[in-house]
Amino acid sequence: MVALDVGGTDVKAAIVAADHTVIHRVRRPTRREHGVESVLATITATAADLAAECRRQTGRAPLAAGVVVPGIVDERTGRAVFSANLGWRDLPLRDLLTQQLDLPVALGHDVRAGGIAEGRLGAARGVDEFVFVALGTGVAAAHVVGGRAQRGAHGGQGELGHLVIRRWGPRCGCGNVGCLETYASADAIARQYMRTAGTLSDPRTDISAEQVSRLALADDPVAGAVWSQAVAALADGLVACVTLYDPALIVIGGGLARSGPALFDPLRAALADRLTFQPHPEVVAAELGSEAGCRGAALLAQDLITSAAWHPAAEATA
Amino acid sequence: MVALDVGGTDVKAAIVAADHTVIHRVRRPTRREHGVESVLATITATAADLAAECRRQTGRAPLAAGVVVPGIVDERTGRAVFSANLGWRDLPLRDLLTQQLDLPVALGHDVRAGGIAEGRLGAARGVDEFVFVALGTGVAAAHVVGGRAQRGAHGGQGELGHLVIRRWGPRCGCGNVGCLETYASADAIARQYMRTAGTLSDPRTDISAEQVSRLALADDPVAGAVWSQAVAALADGLVACVTLYDPALIVIGGGLARSGPALFDPLRAALADRLTFQPHPEVVAAELGSEAGCRGAALLAQDLITSAAWHPAAEATA
Repeated sequence: MVALDVGGTDVKAAIVAADHTVIHRVRRPTRREHGVESVLATITATAADLAAECRRQTGRAPLAAGVVVPGIVDERTGRAVFSANLGWRDLPLRDLLTQQLDLPVALGHDVRAGGIAEGRLGAARGVDEFVFVALGTGVAAAHVVGGRAQRGAHGGQGELGHLVIRRWGPRCGCGNVGCLETYASADAIARQYMRTAGTLSDPRTDISAEQVSRLALADDPVAGAVWSQAVAALADGLVACVTLYDPALIVIGGGLARSGPALFDPLRAALADRLTFQPHPEVVAAELGSEAGCRGAALLAQDLITSAAWHPAAEATA
Repeated sequence: MVALDVGGTDVKAAIVAADHTVIHRVRRPTRREHGVESVLATITATAADLAAECRRQTGRAPLAAGVVVPGIVDERTGRAVFSANLGWRDLPLRDLLTQQLDLPVALGHDVRAGGIAEGRLGAARGVDEFVFVALGTGVAAAHVVGGRAQRGAHGGQGELGHLVIRRWGPRCGCGNVGCLETYASADAIARQYMRTAGTLSDPRTDISAEQVSRLALADDPVAGAVWSQAVAALADGLVACVTLYDPALIVIGGGLARSGPALFDPLRAALADRLTFQPHPEVVAAELGSEAGCRGAALLAQDLITSAAWHPAAEATA
């Protein structure tokens, strides 16, 4: 299987065997700054290189490709409906890639695929109903029930990053104000730190959200304030997830989950503070880390070739 | 089928034939002010009276009973886990009623049952994925996917009334602050009107939420302000539902849906204002009105006797 997780910054890609072993990994810049055409070129070149590598290493062509992308994705029609980060609107991405790669392609949503991967291979093994939250450049959630990530009527379920947390908050890229992403995404945390520290306009002082979390643990007052605000906003968003989804477990993945106790200790405390009558779900770190989306893409590709019903092209090659 | 919808104020009950015709209706005070035992006595007496009426009118005993209640309900175990309104905690209600009524009993959640009824018999016929919102003494939502109302891991999904809308808002009965119910439940609207009009302590001036909506339409400034605040809070709650569930349709039921255009016109405008990239679902009034829960209870009873797997007792009598 060839698997690609197309993010705002990088494409994480891998060759994955049927027993879920990762045979080969690559990571390339998405090049979204050059527009949709350039993102598409990155996807097809990466997939083609991996297919060649697969033939070289295993002597066989890959059976299928799984490609997962952010934003609103309609898995049924194979369309990438909307992504603020990647700039596309209603793109028939599955069919485009099927043609260009000459392979059956499963198109999925990055976070829903990550949720499926955590459920089958990671932190939520054996849990029937859980929420997977990806904290990175963006923030999104997948509500997984009985091994399936719920999609919604238009493929737009789980847009946790655009839940309005503070109605007086900052303007979000989506056009609304006070969305969770404006407080708790990696970008927002880094920018808020630099703004508060007065270094926003100085590129030499660029800092990552992970560095902010480490500074906060080391009692840096600016980092502490920024980090607390992000954790509080995230807790508010998770309480909304608990109230509307009622999961047994919350799995936190994405780059920010690497912050470890700096994230999980105050987050669990804030949740315990805010939940009243609702059953309290456990909150744990994802096990597949930043690979969840890519591993999920491989699972989608595998499901595609074991179920020809998913995509007609699969019949010919399975 | 004997069907009961146990609310905070009234029990709405009916005898319903297999073709969904309502043969007989009754409505009785729940008598929650006398405690859990008294609520249970109301339920069993009402069900017994309906069973007798069923024998009188049709010459046959009912095949099953469906009972739906508010709060957190675990349909799988038949337990009423929690209801602030009715005062119970972890009550094995299905088994208690099965014994007392000597009938197979399906226990359900009032709003999930109402959602199922609107999906099979009402405003959401033919819609695969929708949200049913009950606006009454309380506020709750059911997310219905493929004819099934999602329950959550603990039977607590859809507690929309306890979504925090304003973190600086009033204290809610659930222990949190600023829950949607403190703005947009029928009680909250009536009380807020009386508080603003300065008549809260005068029982002669008791007013209903429906009257507030009519006064608001007639340009009463106090009613207008209270109503606008309720509609704005409700719109914020529905935007959260759209963001996390992505439904194709929102069906509004419960007593407040009777307010008609006074509710739906500003609510649709407020949703259109607040939604940015999300697909906009249609917002329509429930067709079954305040009967949705009771009709849903009848459907649960019917499902029980057509699927003996649901409850072992059904096998003997179906």
